[in-house]
Amino acid sequence: MKIAIINGPNLNLLGKRQPEIYGNKDFESYLTELKQMLSNAAISYYQSNDEGDLINQIQNCDNMYNGIVLNPGGYTHTSVAIADTVSSIKCPVIEVHISNIYQREAERHQSLLSKYCKGSIVGLGLIGYQFAIELLLEND
Amino acid sequence: MKIAIINGPNLNLLGKRQPEIYGNKDFESYLTELKQMLSNAAISYYQSNDEGDLINQIQNCDNMYNGIVLNPGGYTHTSVAIADTVSSIKCPVIEVHISNIYQREAERHQSLLSKYCKGSIVGLGLIGYQFAIELLLEND
Amino acid sequence: MKIAIINGPNLNLLGKRQPEIYGNKDFESYLTELKQMLSNAAISYYQSNDEGDLINQIQNCDNMYNGIVLNPGGYTHTSVAIADTVSSIKCPVIEVHISNIYQREAERHQSLLSKYCKGSIVGLGLIGYQFAIELLLEND
Amino acid sequence: MKIAIINGPNLNLLGKRQPEIYGNKDFESYLTELKQMLSNAAISYYQSNDEGDLINQIQNCDNMYNGIVLNPGGYTHTSVAIADTVSSIKCPVIEVHISNIYQREAERHQSLLSKYCKGSIVGLGLIGYQFAIELLLEND
Amino acid sequence: MKIAIINGPNLNLLGKRQPEIYGNKDFESYLTELKQMLSNAAISYYQSNDEGDLINQIQNCDNMYNGIVLNPGGYTHTSVAIADTVSSIKCPVIEVHISNIYQREAERHQSLLSKYCKGSIVGLGLIGYQFAIELLLEND
Amino acid sequence: MKIAIINGPNLNLLGKRQPEIYGNKDFESYLTELKQMLSNAAISYYQSNDEGDLINQIQNCDNMYNGIVLNPGGYTHTSVAIADTVSSIKCPVIEVHISNIYQREAERHQSLLSKYCKGSIVGLGLIGYQFAIELLLEND
Amino acid sequence: MKIAIINGPNLNLLGKRQPEIYGNKDFESYLTELKQMLSNAAISYYQSNDEGDLINQIQNCDNMYNGIVLNPGGYTHTSVAIADTVSSIKCPVIEVHISNIYQREAERHQSLLSKYCKGSIVGLGLIGYQFAIELLLEND
Amino acid sequence: MKIAIINGPNLNLLGKRQPEIYGNKDFESYLTELKQMLSNAAISYYQSNDEGDLINQIQNCDNMYNGIVLNPGGYTHTSVAIADTVSSIKCPVIEVHISNIYQREAERHQSLLSKYCKGSIVGLGLIGYQFAIELLLEND
Amino acid sequence: MKIAIINGPNLNLLGKRQPEIYGNKDFESYLTELKQMLSNAAISYYQSNDEGDLINQIQNCDNMYNGIVLNPGGYTHTSVAIADTVSSIKCPVIEVHISNIYQREAERHQSLLSKYCKGSIVGLGLIGYQFAIELLLEND
Amino acid sequence: MKIAIINGPNLNLLGKRQPEIYGNKDFESYLTELKQMLSNAAISYYQSNDEGDLINQIQNCDNMYNGIVLNPGGYTHTSVAIADTVSSIKCPVIEVHISNIYQREAERHQSLLSKYCKGSIVGLGLIGYQFAIELLLEND
Amino acid sequence: MKIAIINGPNLNLLGKRQPEIYGNKDFESYLTELKQMLSNAAISYYQSNDEGDLINQIQNCDNMYNGIVLNPGGYTHTSVAIADTVSSIKCPVIEVHISNIYQREAERHQSLLSKYCKGSIVGLGLIGYQFAIELLLEND
Amino acid sequence: MKIAIINGPNLNLLGKRQPEIYGNKDFESYLTELKQMLSNAAISYYQSNDEGDLINQIQNCDNMYNGIVLNPGGYTHTSVAIADTVSSIKCPVIEVHISNIYQREAERHQSLLSKYCKGSIVGLGLIGYQFAIELLLEND
Repeated sequence: MKIAIINGPNLNLLGKRQPEIYGNKDFESYLTELKQMLSNAAISYYQSNDEGDLINQIQNCDNMYNGIVLNPGGYTHTSVAIADTVSSIKCPVIEVHISNIYQREAERHQSLLSKYCKGSIVGLGLIGYQFAIELLLEND
Repeated sequence: MKIAIINGPNLNLLGKRQPEIYGNKDFESYLTELKQMLSNAAISYYQSNDEGDLINQIQNCDNMYNGIVLNPGGYTHTSVAIADTVSSIKCPVIEVHISNIYQREAERHQSLLSKYCKGSIVGLGLIGYQFAIELLLEND
Repeated sequence: MKIAIINGPNLNLLGKRQPEIYGNKDFESYLTELKQMLSNAAISYYQSNDEGDLINQIQNCDNMYNGIVLNPGGYTHTSVAIADTVSSIKCPVIEVHISNIYQREAERHQSLLSKYCKGSIVGLGLIGYQFAIELLLEND
Repeated sequence: MKIAIINGPNLNLLGKRQPEIYGNKDFESYLTELKQMLSNAAISYYQSNDEGDLINQIQNCDNMYNGIVLNPGGYTHTSVAIADTVSSIKCPVIEVHISNIYQREAERHQSLLSKYCKGSIVGLGLIGYQFAIELLLEND
Repeated sequence: MKIAIINGPNLNLLGKRQPEIYGNKDFESYLTELKQMLSNAAISYYQSNDEGDLINQIQNCDNMYNGIVLNPGGYTHTSVAIADTVSSIKCPVIEVHISNIYQREAERHQSLLSKYCKGSIVGLGLIGYQFAIELLLEND
Repeated sequence: MKIAIINGPNLNLLGKRQPEIYGNKDFESYLTELKQMLSNAAISYYQSNDEGDLINQIQNCDNMYNGIVLNPGGYTHTSVAIADTVSSIKCPVIEVHISNIYQREAERHQSLLSKYCKGSIVGLGLIGYQFAIELLLEND
Repeated sequence: MKIAIINGPNLNLLGKRQPEIYGNKDFESYLTELKQMLSNAAISYYQSNDEGDLINQIQNCDNMYNGIVLNPGGYTHTSVAIADTVSSIKCPVIEVHISNIYQREAERHQSLLSKYCKGSIVGLGLIGYQFAIELLLEND
Repeated sequence: MKIAIINGPNLNLLGKRQPEIYGNKDFESYLTELKQMLSNAAISYYQSNDEGDLINQIQNCDNMYNGIVLNPGGYTHTSVAIADTVSSIKCPVIEVHISNIYQREAERHQSLLSKYCKGSIVGLGLIGYQFAIELLLEND
Repeated sequence: MKIAIINGPNLNLLGKRQPEIYGNKDFESYLTELKQMLSNAAISYYQSNDEGDLINQIQNCDNMYNGIVLNPGGYTHTSVAIADTVSSIKCPVIEVHISNIYQREAERHQSLLSKYCKGSIVGLGLIGYQFAIELLLEND
Repeated sequence: MKIAIINGPNLNLLGKRQPEIYGNKDFESYLTELKQMLSNAAISYYQSNDEGDLINQIQNCDNMYNGIVLNPGGYTHTSVAIADTVSSIKCPVIEVHISNIYQREAERHQSLLSKYCKGSIVGLGLIGYQFAIELLLEND
Repeated sequence: MKIAIINGPNLNLLGKRQPEIYGNKDFESYLTELKQMLSNAAISYYQSNDEGDLINQIQNCDNMYNGIVLNPGGYTHTSVAIADTVSSIKCPVIEVHISNIYQREAERHQSLLSKYCKGSIVGLGLIGYQFAIELLLEND
Repeated sequence: MKIAIINGPNLNLLGKRQPEIYGNKDFESYLTELKQMLSNAAISYYQSNDEGDLINQIQNCDNMYNGIVLNPGGYTHTSVAIADTVSSIKCPVIEVHISNIYQREAERHQSLLSKYCKGSIVGLGLIGYQFAIELLLEND
């Protein structure tokens, strides 16, 4: 069972950026824990600040992975192109947001890709990634 | 560790209503499984079609439970009063929706209570309730 | 052939409230006439000011009646939950409004449930209930 | 008692156009049945695809008929001029739509003339014309 | 001179909920003071979290009271049905809000019932109830 | 100096329709007076309820008249096609409305052709036509 | 017969400001011509750039003049207070705009006071003032 | 205890303007009564039709008065500048409107300064000024 | 292979109206060239300024032609009735606009019929008609 | 005569993605046919999923090509930056969309670059590229 | 080189009002420093809380100054009249805001005059005035 | 003191693109002058057409520079991701636009990042970069 986690812009700053909101654990440390916890899944990880890179990566995962856990960061709200990619592939996608986007500015309340994803997990912190993978394992 | 699950209008029809969308398992059967799976939590369940009943129930849970898993059904999109209740209590609330509300009509895309909840799980099916409880147990 | 008439909030005031708009016949008197006129139908009647009661009643009618004539009063414009119930049941529903809602304030121009009903009769006065039942008898 | 039925654009295609929605009875056949059923009314019929023709016809009916049953088709949503005519005449007008316009695209949800009509019957199929005439006979 | 005070959802939490905003006096204590201060009025009190209960109560007060002081809490912004009730009764209604609703989220800025009330008192704290009753006594 | 007056839908009802708003003088009587008053202008008159007729007539006037006085009635607010015609011809056009369209419903507040006209006279009654012609004579 | 012309902000620049739009005649010169042309009317003139001054002046004219010709310049689109004044006085008011405000930016398309005026003359140049006065003389 | 009442545009017409709405008592007469009723407060009064004057007056009151009762008339809905002044001073401000602004046109439903005031009293007539002062005395 | 070209309002002015935008070739001259170029197609041509005529013509073409090339001029943006006709017929329709409607005013940016057409060609000049016919020939 | 075809995100999936909508021919195969058909043009091809790459490529083509055929995929609706590039270069650009974007979700109905292009071809399938090139050859 | 600085409402409170936002230097002190720093410019200063005064002052500066530095305070967002003045004069105007208006409420995000100014400096504090003057000196 | 200037898409065309708007000096030439003028600052320069590159660059500057001068070109209006980056770093950012974005199309009037910047300089031409750096030097 192969799962890809794909993180979008500014998520490489996790642990350094606004720790009072996002905590001070960086994503790599969390990933190590996650792999131990879910040892029956082969988990890969990719982060990019670039919309085109993310599209390429999602396309590439389509035939190679059993599911994608996607946090597109700020592109969530503006990228019809990433939403198109999610709607074009066969591999199931779960959308994850670490913080509660509904407590933030109005332009962050709408996700353009939610309707093409299997489901969304919002505001639960890093554990959202774990739940998303568990769901993909379950449904397999 | 005591957890309350509170379901809103029409969720008593689960298993009977549109099974191609919601599956044909009713909530009571799922609840039995859930209690077995999460035996370290004392899980109570309440369903009502009535906005006022739901408000009463959420208020009552405040001091008696460690967390609430709330699926307010159609009231999600129209009830400032339930949102007020969630914002008034100290007990953490996780919002769960079984189906992906973003794939439905426009008047179902906005949740009035998301901003007062700890987080939201949308479109993952019944397993969303399990994840919500796991999170509450984790954070305790 | 069993038909349920369900009236929402403030329709218990019919005959007393704004008689220049709604006439001064109360619904119970009209019901007696209606039953005589349509003696081949078994007509039941329920009125409540409570959104939850109305949802319960509509759910209960689903398997027991051949059709529902529904006037949800002020909930017409605000209740996604009642609209959900109408969309969840198999029994056909006809929406009736006594007065012409398009001659009133903007917040009364949109009905959230019209799209889930078989059809709507607006502004024809009490005779709208009779037409709705005739249609249900016809289509049976 | 003289009643005019006036149908707007594309209603001449009835029975040929999208029969799964509109049925396969053409309006002329239905009219024959209707005249038999309501033999105490003298029913005339006019159809045009032209906004100006419809306005002329409605104006002409004003003093010659006891009521008008009007289905302005696509002009329902765009013609302030037809709405003006309805508001200018003394003869009562009932608006009829065969299909449920609320189940269609957003630009078909608003009727510009509803507020000037006595009432509206929407989505009940061809029987809506019969009910409209019955109401006009009743109120006479 | 009989006056009814009717409070809507979550106002039973007064004194416990967000005391930095609402103060820590509960409504019952305030009511005792109010009755002493305005001893020439017979003041009754009703609180419910339920929209239907509130409608029933407002209807019942119509012929039995000289005025109603109404704080519909979260229903202020969403209930066309309560607004309908206020517009249907003859008894004058004064709307009261303890906190300044204009300092809160956008969905709390509009009251659906203000236009049917005699007037509104917003943000003055509990003394708003006293002023509302004084006005009703004055106008009698 | 040749001037064309072109009136749109329902203006043939002038003097009969809502005389408390529009007065009880019909346009033909007014026209006779107007021709006497402005005897140095050759004034022609055309009225139609049909959008296409009005477009044809405006096009035809282009090379034959020194100015057009246009009251497009209900088409003022909905006809991009008439606005196109006005923008396509070289002959100056003055828009006239007898009643004050700003005191009416919102859908009558916007004129699609104002921006292509030389100017507009609104709400001054029939004298608006006289002023429009005087302006065209003046500017010649 | 006494008529007051009241001009709002920046109209003191007439003849100097954008002469390609407004011409190069200043208002004082035009006023002299106007007084000669309409010698049966006693015409006064007031211009101010200040909203409060304009309100004072309109109030003062109420009992002293038979009509007011008002061009509120930029306040047309923003001043509820001037609109209030127009709605509060008994003296008839005609709104005049020299240029065609519908050919300009969107924020200039709506006039807040049109609905309280007897009528409006837009885009006819300075002759609009003459027509407005003629109408007031006519109607007297 | 010093209290300033500041009234905005057109409130100098009170008693003369639309007496069926505003009554026929002018503000000066009411002020005399008010001073007698609340003899423990030193009440000053200022009225202006000018936005700038009102801003100057509010600024001047800041250090000299214990509270301001402000009815900005038509500026309520358009003046960010007056709202700025209210938000800049330390002295508490109560907003008062004599008539029920929610029963009037849409552009009068929003107050730009409510969020900076302590509270608002709307539609209670002149007694609103008395209540506002009583509140300021109470809170002192 | 039979193809119908149908042009809407003001396209009869082509070659005369705004030649800097539309060129100075009239449609008849272009049609002659087009017929020579595409001699394997039997091309008919119809132009009308009248919405009803256009609807009649489109309906009539349905069974007699293999495809329709439609430029509804100003009706593009306002005619739900023409859009209805296009959606009701079986014959494929290609929408053509000579100029680039997206470079013009906002009310010209939306086409009501695009969603019912096979496709649209915008802003390519007269050659758009040729491409549309070539496509219809190709797809046959 | 040199022509550049530039395709945006997800168009590399053509032939694989939703073949019922987009057909099962990939763009490279189509390109071979296109080059044979239009052998008098030198056609280059570039595809990228990256907004910045597309901007670079469009800039680079400016002086080297006689025309650009651009299908920006999902960036059509969100990229002011690509629209800027199109508006900044001298080389003519034709916008092509394979499917009918007006039959899809609302966020796909608006193209930010249409107004800067020479014209647009929408919904005609792959042949739209051929037409676009023919136009560029024609106009040269 | 003569430069006029014109400040709008509430800027006379600078140094006293919300010093944590605006600092505690008053404008007069800053002006003294500014004159020393930019001794090659003759700098005049005017502040008013009144919209009409500001318009008069801007008009008066037109021929007497080489440039205007304008901070219209709250009138920035509501005054079409001041925007008109700026668009009517020949003298270049630079708009300055001390605080970052985009971090404040929505009604403060839009400036009506920006489009008529040469440029804007927002949120840089008092130094914005200096930069604005330096630009005017530079461009002379 | 180290300052980074970061320019977004199409700014590499400066001096070549629309010189009547942007002048014909390219940015590199200006940079040379700027470095001479402000020799006490170490100024670096980066330009990219790619959103992801810009995010990477802004992130990288965070700890290495004392301030960033950012002109995100077309991304100003669409990139929540760049706005996120600006809000995530500690280094102060000044937003600069060379031309006056308020004189352009509506979609260019809103900047998504202004609220996270220290301030903005708009429409002053290239000198805006100099002022931004001077401010950063000043505040150090």
